[in-house]
Amino acid sequence: MLNKGRFTLPAQEGMDKEVLMLANKWGVDIIRDSDGTKLSPELTKMDFEVYSTVCLIRQDQDWAKKHPQHCQQKFLMSDRKMAEGSLLEIEIMKGYSKEQFMPDTVHDVKKYWEVINRTTGGIVPVEDWGYNEQTGLVTVKNCTGFHVYTVNFLVYQIWETTSMYNYITNNWTGEHQMGLDPRQPETYDHMLKMLDQWLVDHPDTNWVRFTSMAYQFPIITDENRKTRFQDWSGYTDTVSALALDEFEKEYGYRLRAEDFVDRGYYNSTSNVPSDRYRDWIAFVNKFLIQFSKECVERVHKAGRKAILFFCDHWIGTEPYWEEKFKEANFDALVTPAINGREIRRVADVPGDYTREARLYPYFFPVNLQGEPSFAEGGDPVKECRDYWMWIRRAMVRKCVDRIGFGGYLDLAVENQEFLDYVEHLTNEFRSIVDNSQLTKPLAPVKVAILNAWGQMRSWLYDFGWPLGNVIETLSGLPVDVKFISFDDIKNANVLSGFDVVINAGKSRTAWSGDNLWADKTVQGRIREFVANGGGFVGIFEPSAYEHQGAYFQLADVLGVQREVGLTLNNRAKLNPETTKKHFILEDMEETFQPSVFIEDVYAINPEAQILAKQGKHVVASANQFAKGRAIYFAGFDFSANNNRMLERAVYWAASKENVVNENFTSNKHTELAIYPEAKKYFVFNNSGSDQKTTLVINKGKSEVQLKPFEGKWFDL
Amino acid sequence: MLNKGRFTLPAQEGMDKEVLMLANKWGVDIIRDSDGTKLSPELTKMDFEVYSTVCLIRQDQDWAKKHPQHCQQKFLMSDRKMAEGSLLEIEIMKGYSKEQFMPDTVHDVKKYWEVINRTTGGIVPVEDWGYNEQTGLVTVKNCTGFHVYTVNFLVYQIWETTSMYNYITNNWTGEHQMGLDPRQPETYDHMLKMLDQWLVDHPDTNWVRFTSMAYQFPIITDENRKTRFQDWSGYTDTVSALALDEFEKEYGYRLRAEDFVDRGYYNSTSNVPSDRYRDWIAFVNKFLIQFSKECVERVHKAGRKAILFFCDHWIGTEPYWEEKFKEANFDALVTPAINGREIRRVADVPGDYTREARLYPYFFPVNLQGEPSFAEGGDPVKECRDYWMWIRRAMVRKCVDRIGFGGYLDLAVENQEFLDYVEHLTNEFRSIVDNSQLTKPLAPVKVAILNAWGQMRSWLYDFGWPLGNVIETLSGLPVDVKFISFDDIKNANVLSGFDVVINAGKSRTAWSGDNLWADKTVQGRIREFVANGGGFVGIFEPSAYEHQGAYFQLADVLGVQREVGLTLNNRAKLNPETTKKHFILEDMEETFQPSVFIEDVYAINPEAQILAKQGKHVVASANQFAKGRAIYFAGFDFSANNNRMLERAVYWAASKENVVNENFTSNKHTELAIYPEAKKYFVFNNSGSDQKTTLVINKGKSEVQLKPFEGKWFDL
Repeated sequence: MLNKGRFTLPAQEGMDKEVLMLANKWGVDIIRDSDGTKLSPELTKMDFEVYSTVCLIRQDQDWAKKHPQHCQQKFLMSDRKMAEGSLLEIEIMKGYSKEQFMPDTVHDVKKYWEVINRTTGGIVPVEDWGYNEQTGLVTVKNCTGFHVYTVNFLVYQIWETTSMYNYITNNWTGEHQMGLDPRQPETYDHMLKMLDQWLVDHPDTNWVRFTSMAYQFPIITDENRKTRFQDWSGYTDTVSALALDEFEKEYGYRLRAEDFVDRGYYNSTSNVPSDRYRDWIAFVNKFLIQFSKECVERVHKAGRKAILFFCDHWIGTEPYWEEKFKEANFDALVTPAINGREIRRVADVPGDYTREARLYPYFFPVNLQGEPSFAEGGDPVKECRDYWMWIRRAMVRKCVDRIGFGGYLDLAVENQEFLDYVEHLTNEFRSIVDNSQLTKPLAPVKVAILNAWGQMRSWLYDFGWPLGNVIETLSGLPVDVKFISFDDIKNANVLSGFDVVINAGKSRTAWSGDNLWADKTVQGRIREFVANGGGFVGIFEPSAYEHQGAYFQLADVLGVQREVGLTLNNRAKLNPETTKKHFILEDMEETFQPSVFIEDVYAINPEAQILAKQGKHVVASANQFAKGRAIYFAGFDFSANNNRMLERAVYWAASKENVVNENFTSNKHTELAIYPEAKKYFVFNNSGSDQKTTLVINKGKSEVQLKPFEGKWFDL
Repeated sequence: MLNKGRFTLPAQEGMDKEVLMLANKWGVDIIRDSDGTKLSPELTKMDFEVYSTVCLIRQDQDWAKKHPQHCQQKFLMSDRKMAEGSLLEIEIMKGYSKEQFMPDTVHDVKKYWEVINRTTGGIVPVEDWGYNEQTGLVTVKNCTGFHVYTVNFLVYQIWETTSMYNYITNNWTGEHQMGLDPRQPETYDHMLKMLDQWLVDHPDTNWVRFTSMAYQFPIITDENRKTRFQDWSGYTDTVSALALDEFEKEYGYRLRAEDFVDRGYYNSTSNVPSDRYRDWIAFVNKFLIQFSKECVERVHKAGRKAILFFCDHWIGTEPYWEEKFKEANFDALVTPAINGREIRRVADVPGDYTREARLYPYFFPVNLQGEPSFAEGGDPVKECRDYWMWIRRAMVRKCVDRIGFGGYLDLAVENQEFLDYVEHLTNEFRSIVDNSQLTKPLAPVKVAILNAWGQMRSWLYDFGWPLGNVIETLSGLPVDVKFISFDDIKNANVLSGFDVVINAGKSRTAWSGDNLWADKTVQGRIREFVANGGGFVGIFEPSAYEHQGAYFQLADVLGVQREVGLTLNNRAKLNPETTKKHFILEDMEETFQPSVFIEDVYAINPEAQILAKQGKHVVASANQFAKGRAIYFAGFDFSANNNRMLERAVYWAASKENVVNENFTSNKHTELAIYPEAKKYFVFNNSGSDQKTTLVINKGKSEVQLKPFEGKWFDL
């Protein structure tokens, strides 16, 4: 077993000795010079590869000061304000950070801004309003009294988001950095020239990590530096007057401010995207890939490799759009990861890339939740172990190539227990790579997760970061998971490639699907799929959209329906007895009791099996539908009990209950990954206590003992 | 004080002695011959007035047998069924009682029936389906596989609903009675002739109680005699092929089967009515009033008085449509009543009528909930006292003229405690009538309850019959209550007549208002009303309808909003500290904790006062909006604590907190009614324990002691 390599260490000036110590202990092969730190000549001369970060949009603040109109832009919506009479004054920046944003008066406000009557939805004629740059007020005349108005206005973002985040969270001081927009041709050329110079200035760098290309995921901050809106994959920050004009040329129609402001929902990724928003995403992606390609070409010409940081400023790159993304020609993807789905998000990107996960905790005094980590009162070992438990589950299903850590080494080296734990974790990570040979583990069931976005937002959705629920559980189950969209069913009927479809999300969201469920082709094809023997697992409010007398559109498939006020006079709400015995409940110690659940779900099929109720509310049920099967869960939390129940639910829905007699670990606190090609298998303990389990491997039984969190490899 | 009169007693054959005993004990002045019982000649000769029931639609079963095509009709929707291929067979009567309904094949099924694809909403062409009367199957061809279909079909109701109810609930035996439709001209004439003869045959009857005119509120029963659908004010039973054709002539357009089936929701009164359904109601009402008028004329001509039973078969009479209802010229209204809002429903009907409430328990072995009442294990005294507690609260606000009981005397007379309790209750009822002189009690605040129906469905809505919640509480509070509709605001701006508007109901229902909240005029006028000093109290999901970026349309007024999946990426959800001290909480012993509440409500105004939370969910809040005020409750249950809190909420919202220093009873288990014209006031104890309270009467204070449930009268 190799105890070296696949590990990236952040360097720190003046700590060469510690770097060398850790390089040995952790098997470091790449040294990273982070934002703000530089590698010493001593280190760069060692036998490490060097990985350096570059952020072109922030690189040249002098250029930014000289070209403030090349700063990035976005549309904001003023707070809603009621007119008491015919005249109304709206302080547009009220509730927004004036450190972060400045209204754009360079471009004609009457062309780009909109004043909207939110009571009627009507646009106020441009002659009825004006903006006073001195007072920051939009004055609206001819208002209807007691109607509510907003202003959609274009701003320059004068404080770049990551710079702002570091100031606010990590108490950085000094100049507020600005972020430039490469869509400005002059700035575009300047960035490429900077990159050429940067490559000259960094002769020892082997890996150029772009942090990232241009546009940040939006974080809109209020006057008190608190986050108002955040969307990990929103395109809010990709807007500019120039881009709007170019879009019009390319697409033949013009987008309105309202297309971005979207009633104040800002095209939240949790909402079903409009066709116009989808056009915009494609438009931005085309530009971003062109820009990325030119950057990567320069890196390659200089004999280096290019990494996309699949985190800050990744918007527009769309790594899951395989063909388009390939054009950019990146060599590697790096992502921070705290849990299983963050691992899967980078691991599942199609194509041939080196993938690295930066693990947590960051070597910072406080963690991402603002609690002490390396500071007094923190427990970085426990944190790291909790995250690793979630991450390991996912890695054994689909692994990355490398791991790393970030932050300040001087904080980490003070904690010997932490250094030892990371050594253990790193060795275990390498054992997964080496033993599995990165081959595909056994996955007896193919699962499609259906939502409005499909593959392009793979592993993205979940309640309750960092842990989350359904998707987190699935990231580590021994099943093949793909994300599909309603369009995938409608245009290509992809269902034949799957055993089970999962639809998990609350009504009105993109994760459930909202009005997309009224589509006759989608409905028909899913019914056909299940009727012919497929499985359907619905969680929270699957297929929820009132249409033609049904709220859960697939209530017939599920055997349950939800009362939402429309059928208060219908009395035929069945209330069958709860079934205690069912394949999917066999490892449950207690009644399924989700912490949050959808109320008012009731059976409509007298033969539906009710597996758990809370009060009168069905919280788990199973239903036979023609030759197929469906499961409903009104809620879901990550836990040993529930993860096992979901695993069994997927097998049962697929009519593949026999999996548990073929390849299985009996103890739900343990999980199993089998690699037929590599002829190895791995069983591991997710719990903090000793566990004993009966393994079934290719129908043969054996007993295994595991210490807390222990994993064991065996030959197949 | 009078101890006689205002009481109607049901007679029973062979129990003349007991009747006389009770007549004396309870002060009976009217004797009723119920359905199925006849008064003996001895009784009819006594000094009682006699009240007899007549039900014209069931009176002549021979006529019904000879004219089966004059039976009442309705549209049913078959259960939803998926097509597996292009051919589909639907057993239309599956899930429906064949005792109650028979498909109508007298009229052209292709003209009146519809087959609907519920996946697309499309109507299947008539040439693509056919009905086989022998098999009861509709066969549909050219189906789209895996789409779901239903049949909307016209039936004859061959078992009249009340007859059926009595068979099922009270184990009646014998012939299933049919109900005739007076819209058939021949039957109409026959009914009038029968009525003439009936009047001749009942020379001793003073009061003719119509039970009622023609159309029952719908109870749709399944194959197991269980209720599938019930709607206390639905027009489902008013349909017939003839009526549909006449409607077309009168309104110039034709209603479809789907207009009645309504996706299976059957125009549930809990849902917002369509314009077409409203037209139908007016059309039926016009006919019913004409028929009623002709009946009442005959009664009057015979020197008797006419009573409308405001219960069974009341559909189409619409007593709250004052002008139209006056035309029918009834003398009296009788209703059963178990709680306060059932009292108010009859008491608040505009116009000059004698109003009688039939109280509960019915002298039956089991009560309306199917639990023992006069049978072994029942406690009719407790039942009666519980109901009376609810009823008395309402009667002191707006009283009826008479009370009565129903059922079998022989059951009642065996229970001396019950006889004594009714004597007490009856005397207390008469004390209310006599002391108040039926004058208006002091009501310092005028409250409008806003829903989609307005006045025509006054006091109708509530969860959880028999007790219910918000509306039940309001039925007994010392405030003036009127029900208004969105149209009342839009067409006549009635708001100036009120101090407070209440909107209480779940989203998507007629009680909240659903899409009616998108109306700009309604929104503007309510905002204006509150901004100028009015009050708004929202309960459950007030003003809930997603439109232009708001879910609670009046979130700005309320100071709170609800997250329903649309703003998952908005982080600006305020979470202010809970305020313990507030005018409306002053008599609360504990934190407001509704049994059922709307989750995910949060503050949007930093100055909103959060009065109670459950977990992170706001369940009670108060907000200042310009010169006015708003209160939000996420749920509500009837209780001394909550009733008092709602009373205070109404005062606070109206900016009339001073009421508690002017006329008030300090102890929340007691309530107070003051009659300025009659110069009396009444204080009463709603609890089963002794209570002491400080009364404030016209700013002067006094102490009062009350025994359990006791009421005391004082001179003003």
